[in-house]
Amino acid sequence: MVDQLEHVVQCSYRYTVHFTTDALAPTHRLLRDVVAATNQSRSRLLFVVDRGVAQHHPGLARQIEAYVTAHADALELACPPLLLPGGEEVKNSQEHVATLREVIADADVSQQSYVVAVGGGAVLDVAGFAAATAQRGLRLVRMPTTTLAQADAGVAVTAGINACGRKDFVGAFCPPVAVINDASLLTTLEARDWRGGLAEAIKIALGRDAAFFDFIESNAHRLVARDLGVMTQTIRRSVELHLGAAEARGPEALFGHWAAFKLEALTDFRLRHGEAVAIGVALDTTYSYLAGLLDENSWRRVLATLKTVGFTLYTAALRTNLGEPEHPRSLLRGLAEFHQRRGGPLAIMLLRGIGDVVETPAVGVGLVQRSIAVLETAASEPQVA
Amino acid sequence: MVDQLEHVVQCSYRYTVHFTTDALAPTHRLLRDVVAATNQSRSRLLFVVDRGVAQHHPGLARQIEAYVTAHADALELACPPLLLPGGEEVKNSQEHVATLREVIADADVSQQSYVVAVGGGAVLDVAGFAAATAQRGLRLVRMPTTTLAQADAGVAVTAGINACGRKDFVGAFCPPVAVINDASLLTTLEARDWRGGLAEAIKIALGRDAAFFDFIESNAHRLVARDLGVMTQTIRRSVELHLGAAEARGPEALFGHWAAFKLEALTDFRLRHGEAVAIGVALDTTYSYLAGLLDENSWRRVLATLKTVGFTLYTAALRTNLGEPEHPRSLLRGLAEFHQRRGGPLAIMLLRGIGDVVETPAVGVGLVQRSIAVLETAASEPQVA
Repeated sequence: MVDQLEHVVQCSYRYTVHFTTDALAPTHRLLRDVVAATNQSRSRLLFVVDRGVAQHHPGLARQIEAYVTAHADALELACPPLLLPGGEEVKNSQEHVATLREVIADADVSQQSYVVAVGGGAVLDVAGFAAATAQRGLRLVRMPTTTLAQADAGVAVTAGINACGRKDFVGAFCPPVAVINDASLLTTLEARDWRGGLAEAIKIALGRDAAFFDFIESNAHRLVARDLGVMTQTIRRSVELHLGAAEARGPEALFGHWAAFKLEALTDFRLRHGEAVAIGVALDTTYSYLAGLLDENSWRRVLATLKTVGFTLYTAALRTNLGEPEHPRSLLRGLAEFHQRRGGPLAIMLLRGIGDVVETPAVGVGLVQRSIAVLETAASEPQVA
Repeated sequence: MVDQLEHVVQCSYRYTVHFTTDALAPTHRLLRDVVAATNQSRSRLLFVVDRGVAQHHPGLARQIEAYVTAHADALELACPPLLLPGGEEVKNSQEHVATLREVIADADVSQQSYVVAVGGGAVLDVAGFAAATAQRGLRLVRMPTTTLAQADAGVAVTAGINACGRKDFVGAFCPPVAVINDASLLTTLEARDWRGGLAEAIKIALGRDAAFFDFIESNAHRLVARDLGVMTQTIRRSVELHLGAAEARGPEALFGHWAAFKLEALTDFRLRHGEAVAIGVALDTTYSYLAGLLDENSWRRVLATLKTVGFTLYTAALRTNLGEPEHPRSLLRGLAEFHQRRGGPLAIMLLRGIGDVVETPAVGVGLVQRSIAVLETAASEPQVA
């Protein structure tokens, strides 16, 4: 005999992605208003700041303190801003998460307090994971500081850290209360981080919006010339397309990513995520072309646009242990790992045309190997304008 | 200028709490059907089993293997059942969570695989937290093996481990796919774990259902005599009341818990959760009586029922550093910690009558101290039947 009780849990999370500039100027009310909207008493804030950002903006810690002082009726600091090293490295150990938890425990931070994470994707991930898993979940405001983080990690509903040799193996659901995309933080980025977000923008354009791809293609030189207005427009549309997905991690969002994740691991994260995505997108676009799914002209346009905005489309890591698909340090092993996470049969996202990604249920290992060879040649060809 | 994009994320989780017996007998189809309902291909199962349960049921690992073999068309084991030590101790380090993650990474466990956790509340918590945070979340089936876990941790939507010296400081949202409450697992419980769930049942009865309190009161002797039918009825109603809460961690569910959490920590978890809840409920009931909120007869009935089912209502830990409310190892410090987690002003849940818990915004430290003195006397009085 089985007797039973049914239970339904409904959750709804609403958050706003704000596009602004100089958000930490004392007169800017956005952060204050976002936080004050949910609390009747003064809100305690724990700032977690990317050390790289703090180095490029030497007055940042003082600016944060001045901001909170200027809005002392609504805000207070739980403790001085906490610095974390930036870059993927910070996600490779539990240590930083553990440090954040200690601070949260010591600094009287409650479920009604806010973690305000200011940094690149890696720092946002570490701060977000710590916030989501401490005290049954703290409130989170993200202020992403790279083009990639503003377009991707900053607006995501999950945050992960690396473990067991896999990227983002450990993570939690952590929708933010708000995201503040501040264009003024982008001006000091080194070139690698300036272009990083364009890989995800091109990826999502290929999956969902041919006109957006045209926009990036025709503005590629302006993006290289660090036109902040064009970059802001590009990020905004990329966010819109990423958030508009019926399924956050649907096929279009994952185009090129099986290889990207593995290339990051194979290069010990010397390739940054955007750089790896650029190669992954180039690889799967080439595979789509060689498989007879994509026309040659579209294939050339995708590769040319990626190259024009500054990405390198080939890395020796593509060939590491290429003849041994089962080898833990082989690109092809990344396919199996990608599918282990998702479950279900082996599949790959392919390009049928610009703006049209499809999921196909089988992968030809030989064709992946040929795609690498073709990509190597194409990557080294001089750019035809 | 601020431009913005709104984003809404809706999640809905539905799960069934099944009440059955001998769920792991090869002919019992429940677990198989629960798992097969969501997967088209064979489902991979990772069993995590409480070592204490395995000791009381020496054939359990073999039984699990036989069960999966009997349903080999729908089920397969990812690896042999993994044993974890039972009891709160297992929640005090990250080590067991890390071990589980390694197994998940090595045993080809995907988002479509299942972690089946068989054990007391602590093992369910560790397995649930590991499952929720690995691979962006695995599916979870809970088979709670104590009266407390069947009535409480087993049906919860969160799972936590202890960190920074605080109970459940680190946790994640992890609604199960299903909960299987198997009465046959309760027959071998030692007396402490047999009665443990009654503390939560009495607590929720006091908060929400006076008739349920009457039921427990009038069946107290049958419960002590290990009447499985009465226990199953009690657990079922307790689950129903816990799940029926508009707010899972609302005031009624938290009655007596500020002290309970702290007493567990102060005794280094020698007091088990149910035992600590019994004392916490007795303490706050006494406080309610001394504060003039609760009549003397109701106060006596609550204490008598808790004593009749076997709980000890006083522990020396209540008086540890009692004169120093700020001392980290003082009961009164537990009030601050409880409110640090929830945020907002200091408050305490009190009893206005049986079935009627109210949240009051202030706490009288002197009255807590008097309540402890009164409780000490009451706890040592011989039971008046």
